[in-house]
Amino acid sequence: MSAVQAMTARPVLIGLDWGTTAMRGYLFDARGEVIDSRASSDGIMRLPQAGGFDAAFEAACGQWLESTPDLPVIAAGMVGSAQGWREAPYVDTPADACALVAGIVRVTTARGVCLHIVPGVIERSELPNVMRGEETQIVGALASDAIAGAARTLVGLPGTHAKWAVVRGERIESFHTFMTGELYAALRDHTILGRTMAEPAAPDTQAFLRGVTVAKHAHRAGLLATIFSTRTLGLTGSLATEQQPDYLSGLLIGHELAGLASLLESRGAALASEAPRLIGSAALCERYRLALAEFGCVHASVVEAAAENGLWRIATQAGLVERHATASGR
Amino acid sequence: MSAVQAMTARPVLIGLDWGTTAMRGYLFDARGEVIDSRASSDGIMRLPQAGGFDAAFEAACGQWLESTPDLPVIAAGMVGSAQGWREAPYVDTPADACALVAGIVRVTTARGVCLHIVPGVIERSELPNVMRGEETQIVGALASDAIAGAARTLVGLPGTHAKWAVVRGERIESFHTFMTGELYAALRDHTILGRTMAEPAAPDTQAFLRGVTVAKHAHRAGLLATIFSTRTLGLTGSLATEQQPDYLSGLLIGHELAGLASLLESRGAALASEAPRLIGSAALCERYRLALAEFGCVHASVVEAAAENGLWRIATQAGLVERHATASGR
Repeated sequence: MSAVQAMTARPVLIGLDWGTTAMRGYLFDARGEVIDSRASSDGIMRLPQAGGFDAAFEAACGQWLESTPDLPVIAAGMVGSAQGWREAPYVDTPADACALVAGIVRVTTARGVCLHIVPGVIERSELPNVMRGEETQIVGALASDAIAGAARTLVGLPGTHAKWAVVRGERIESFHTFMTGELYAALRDHTILGRTMAEPAAPDTQAFLRGVTVAKHAHRAGLLATIFSTRTLGLTGSLATEQQPDYLSGLLIGHELAGLASLLESRGAALASEAPRLIGSAALCERYRLALAEFGCVHASVVEAAAENGLWRIATQAGLVERHATASGR
Repeated sequence: MSAVQAMTARPVLIGLDWGTTAMRGYLFDARGEVIDSRASSDGIMRLPQAGGFDAAFEAACGQWLESTPDLPVIAAGMVGSAQGWREAPYVDTPADACALVAGIVRVTTARGVCLHIVPGVIERSELPNVMRGEETQIVGALASDAIAGAARTLVGLPGTHAKWAVVRGERIESFHTFMTGELYAALRDHTILGRTMAEPAAPDTQAFLRGVTVAKHAHRAGLLATIFSTRTLGLTGSLATEQQPDYLSGLLIGHELAGLASLLESRGAALASEAPRLIGSAALCERYRLALAEFGCVHASVVEAAAENGLWRIATQAGLVERHATASGR
């Protein structure tokens, strides 16, 4: 959509992707196109000291609501957690958009607007798994051509707490959480491994893939046994200080994917035969694409705008968007 | 030895176990008995701002050297690292006490005393491993009845960077490093897992063993996939906040032992058939003994005073202790 269209298009919905450390706001037109957006660091753990949730909400949406006071608002992510604005209890797997809609909770803002909060999803297996925000991204990914109609899709959401979900038809059937991103940060910033590291000028793909390969071959020895090599390969002069961050990243992502391969195998599937859809930042998804290829999985592809599309789909399914407005929507 | 004996016994050697965060000093008589000792927090990363290594050395040994000025002094541990007082280059595996003696480096203190520093050991495998201090403890353990004469012994040294070494005869043949202790601290203090934890009044063995069992069964999924359960089992009400520290500890130690079992298996050995000798604090060794039993390994036992015995053995083999003094020694 051109700038002129954006300025003239009539907004019909505000969607918020409201996580722990950041918030993104989207203004949608009647076709489900994003005509304006906001990004802020007002995650639920970094709220403004004065005003809290309401102040963060006003900063993101105030101007939009001044222009169009009766806009419906939907939000997904940690804003619905026990530490959020209002808790939206988890929906059990298998979960589809209908179940998410049924689980929406509402909170009224200081301005008198009703904020609709999408619930997270829980899988009550022996080791339970939970997600908040990713369920909405997955619903958004299901809107894309590549997934629509697929009987079964593997969806990967790399990040602080990486998720891998098996989606059957339109339902999130099961998923796992790998604490890869957060563990990487803790190892780099708070253990001896960080002491010999230097930031490279540019990502070192070779060092990254070396880590992936080591993890793949040594997965049964486990991450506790391989990560110390970040230091010892440095001591023996075979890994430069600038290579150590990417090597460690490769080790962790390699162990994640080896673990994923094992989990899939226990369900009769093979990672190499999957065509995973990846949701996340372009740079991180590219890392995963490269790492997946080391496991023989060469058909991974990236889903764009998953959060926006998910918020739109859930809002329309919940009847938040006027019927006539969605006639030409997605 | 009684207090009276200790006061009258003639000292013949000072031994220092000098690590990253702590230092222990031992005063030996001619039979290799410890007649006095010192403990301080003057590890090589926590040296006194004024005076550094020399000030820490004086604080530990000054009084002993005032009484007996010509005492030989031997030290093991990180004091011989590149960040130590003087670097003692690593000795390659397989390494025995002879090789350690041959690798001793010397530094002269401000007092004019010659400090003999025992080198660490390196295994130059595809993923190199290094130890500093543990080689001396292993030599000390070899003095004990249970190991003397054994063709092959598995030695475990739990801690910040846990080591598992295979000793054949008197030689350290190979070893692995598991960053279990440091990873536990990083996860507890610097990730979301710590946020819901409360310290229990007493260690919770049941929660610990639950973690061990989960890790044992889910080892192929990997640690990245299991640790998040510390949080989700809390969310679902099946793991109290006070149980979470021990559960996470059990998870990590369980993954360590499952990885060890896999490494042993690849060399044709079985963890369940081993009778490991454990070196470390009594509480930590007891945790490992319980965890090992979950892997069918029920013959683990604890080695006492390994550092002291190792320093004594290496010093006597290096000829630091007068010949007549050692006649009745170990």
